[in-house]
Amino acid sequence: MGITPSAQHSVMIRVELDAGRPDLVGRLATAIGEVGGDIVALDTVEESRAVVLRELIVNASTEEHAKEVLDAAEGVEGARIVETFDRTFRLHEGGKIEMDPRVELDTLQDLGTAGAQGAARVAQAIARNPDLAFELTMKRNMVAVITDGTAVLGLGDIGAIAGMPVMEGKSMLFKGFADVDSYPICLDTHDPDELIETITAIAPAFGGINLEDIAAPVCFAVEDRLKETLDIPVFHDDQHGTAIVTLAALINACKLTGHRMEDLKVVVNGIGASGVACSKILMDVGVRNIIGCDTRGAIYKGRTENMNFMKEWYAENTNPEGLEGTLGDVIEDATLFLGLSGPGTLPLEFLKRMGEDAIVFAMANPVPEIMPEEAAPYVAVMATGRSDYPNQINNVLAFPGVFRGALDCRARQITEGMKVAAGEAIAEVVSDDELEPDYIIPSVFNEAVAPAVAKKVVEVALAEGVARHAPAHG
Amino acid sequence: MGITPSAQHSVMIRVELDAGRPDLVGRLATAIGEVGGDIVALDTVEESRAVVLRELIVNASTEEHAKEVLDAAEGVEGARIVETFDRTFRLHEGGKIEMDPRVELDTLQDLGTAGAQGAARVAQAIARNPDLAFELTMKRNMVAVITDGTAVLGLGDIGAIAGMPVMEGKSMLFKGFADVDSYPICLDTHDPDELIETITAIAPAFGGINLEDIAAPVCFAVEDRLKETLDIPVFHDDQHGTAIVTLAALINACKLTGHRMEDLKVVVNGIGASGVACSKILMDVGVRNIIGCDTRGAIYKGRTENMNFMKEWYAENTNPEGLEGTLGDVIEDATLFLGLSGPGTLPLEFLKRMGEDAIVFAMANPVPEIMPEEAAPYVAVMATGRSDYPNQINNVLAFPGVFRGALDCRARQITEGMKVAAGEAIAEVVSDDELEPDYIIPSVFNEAVAPAVAKKVVEVALAEGVARHAPAHG
Repeated sequence: MGITPSAQHSVMIRVELDAGRPDLVGRLATAIGEVGGDIVALDTVEESRAVVLRELIVNASTEEHAKEVLDAAEGVEGARIVETFDRTFRLHEGGKIEMDPRVELDTLQDLGTAGAQGAARVAQAIARNPDLAFELTMKRNMVAVITDGTAVLGLGDIGAIAGMPVMEGKSMLFKGFADVDSYPICLDTHDPDELIETITAIAPAFGGINLEDIAAPVCFAVEDRLKETLDIPVFHDDQHGTAIVTLAALINACKLTGHRMEDLKVVVNGIGASGVACSKILMDVGVRNIIGCDTRGAIYKGRTENMNFMKEWYAENTNPEGLEGTLGDVIEDATLFLGLSGPGTLPLEFLKRMGEDAIVFAMANPVPEIMPEEAAPYVAVMATGRSDYPNQINNVLAFPGVFRGALDCRARQITEGMKVAAGEAIAEVVSDDELEPDYIIPSVFNEAVAPAVAKKVVEVALAEGVARHAPAHG
Repeated sequence: MGITPSAQHSVMIRVELDAGRPDLVGRLATAIGEVGGDIVALDTVEESRAVVLRELIVNASTEEHAKEVLDAAEGVEGARIVETFDRTFRLHEGGKIEMDPRVELDTLQDLGTAGAQGAARVAQAIARNPDLAFELTMKRNMVAVITDGTAVLGLGDIGAIAGMPVMEGKSMLFKGFADVDSYPICLDTHDPDELIETITAIAPAFGGINLEDIAAPVCFAVEDRLKETLDIPVFHDDQHGTAIVTLAALINACKLTGHRMEDLKVVVNGIGASGVACSKILMDVGVRNIIGCDTRGAIYKGRTENMNFMKEWYAENTNPEGLEGTLGDVIEDATLFLGLSGPGTLPLEFLKRMGEDAIVFAMANPVPEIMPEEAAPYVAVMATGRSDYPNQINNVLAFPGVFRGALDCRARQITEGMKVAAGEAIAEVVSDDELEPDYIIPSVFNEAVAPAVAKKVVEVALAEGVARHAPAHG
């Protein structure tokens, strides 16, 4: 099960080719292809009498593979590499986001209006009525993206500052997909109380808090406490973003297969942040039979090994038949496998024990619980977290629209109802005509998604009384 | 001593004038002028057969005055106001700054390189070597602008969120004057320990910390503790920005008057954050005779009334002759009056007691310790904090260039030497040919200032060994 070349390991290669040799591009491409490099772009930079300067962008699988690609190119007679760099690192130089003024500052008049003196008047108005901060400061459109660096992607605890590229990436996605401004904050503490105090202290100027990559079970306590004390939405994306998109995929998978939520037998593998949140949202929409598994097998009432307060809750509220045993045991006749665990944790022989028209969401990244090729003959619908297979369950379908909606109506919180509505909105973007096993979830670039999610989120926020403001939506 | 109309109270007025009446603009302008409104712009929006739509921007002195201006315009026969708004508030709508991506995000390839997968590789590299954060995250160019809202401009303690418009304004100035990215953070706590903990927790992703509008004496303790524990510059602008620009003005004032630093008798009125910092920087450049005054008069060794730990330090380190008494007493023969106090606190009879070629920096804003018109006959050089008089001592001449330099060389701190160098750099922007009593300090829009300051700051940082990096400056 090799790793597909991807943009994660993308190399720019500038190569000088002898002029008058039309065969050289073909030789070069062949050499790179033979070692498994994926040429995604080729361009001509400069031509002279003697040489032609070409630029290639090649995706590789790993850093070592990228080196093989370079060696292969260098080995072509008549070709000389003149420059090469790792595109991922080059792109991150100096960070991925910046602050920009929204207003001009060219004259003394501007300095007076926007600068200290004008700002003083606005500051006084907000001091008298703090709600005006939604009108007159960036709070209206600003979300804090906060991590403590303890669960960054699949990397574990890599420390606050190392989480920054991921948080900056998140800020880009917020802006790009829903015009939400956001600011990445990496907190240099792992203590839940300090996390809560720090976030509380910085909260006033934000319209919402997006927690990110904070390890379970600390993430649950931090989110719960902040939700109690703050009057702006607090949303742990690893939990709720994943849950919303999973729900969307499941709604459409059920439509296709004819399964009904209340009849599903769901096995959730991996009971961390996202496993718990996915289970909760499924209960919100009527799923009754959920069995969670961790590395010790099924979680059931009375289990004592490898538990924490969240798993205790889980044992109390799921697994109505009290099943015990391994994943291989409890997967018998399951209709949905929800993988939020690690690579290859769903062996084919387990999969084969699932019920008719089985649905498999294998979301471990980059290597899923089972590869789609392998699962295909035995499943009705398959989804993963990967962009290079159909049905990518990607949080980016949820969080931009959810916060767009929450900010637009100045929501005090993001309720379970708002999350479910967001999932339904994403599912509805795929019309009945379009719906098929390889298309249950819209593409991450589908521009209809974020506005559809935002609209539904606002509707429910208004209906549930958590909105401060009715936006003049189109 | 009326308040001059300024951009702080700037009103947009759209007024419909009967067509074919060339007298109407004159009548309108006269009516506005008669009540003291300052017309800074006039434009034609639309013309039809019957009416001409004009737009005026008028500066007023106060909100009440702005209403008088509107009444006066409305009173002109043949003119009807159709729209009007307070330009200051309009400009602040939705805040003054935003986050923007620095890289494109249009394709799956982009998502892979900048998004989670690419970011994961960069995150791992930073986890192995945290210094790489200066290369591969926004830390390289990002300053935190932090307040607790306790001393916002002249407004006192107005609360964290109300400080936001002022902090956003600061961020605009950082970007506009020195291409420094910054992010405003308003902390909802007044406790020094909590301030220190919170700032320490959020610090790793920033290249510098600019403290702002934190009341004395808390500001001293917070700054001192953070300087000890953090490995990035911590700079309380109210203290050091003011001190640097004051030094710059004084260097040139001395050049003009022939005074020597070591012979000056300086009276500092107002021993808060800026008063203390200005005194310290003057000592750095050789000034020996400084007497500080607060509302109870001179600060001297042995004074017991109205003291705090910083005033104790001040009493120990200034006022070598141990002068006691009121401002009026100690100002006898002073050569420099440094006002960092409140409106009108320097009566003319006190000023008249100063020595020959007296220098007066009256920096209370918006109404200085003494108005320039009043002081003019009795001073050799006069400066204020106001933009509508010559010699504006404005922090914006200092902090953008100081942080530009500190970021460029990845400084661990901003030393006294770097501050003095910054002041000298600002002073040098005014050439000997240009130097005159009404031009001792460059305009805030002088684009030579920030690069000159940055260059000197880098030089000194490298010389003093607090730089991590030698930039390839031009």
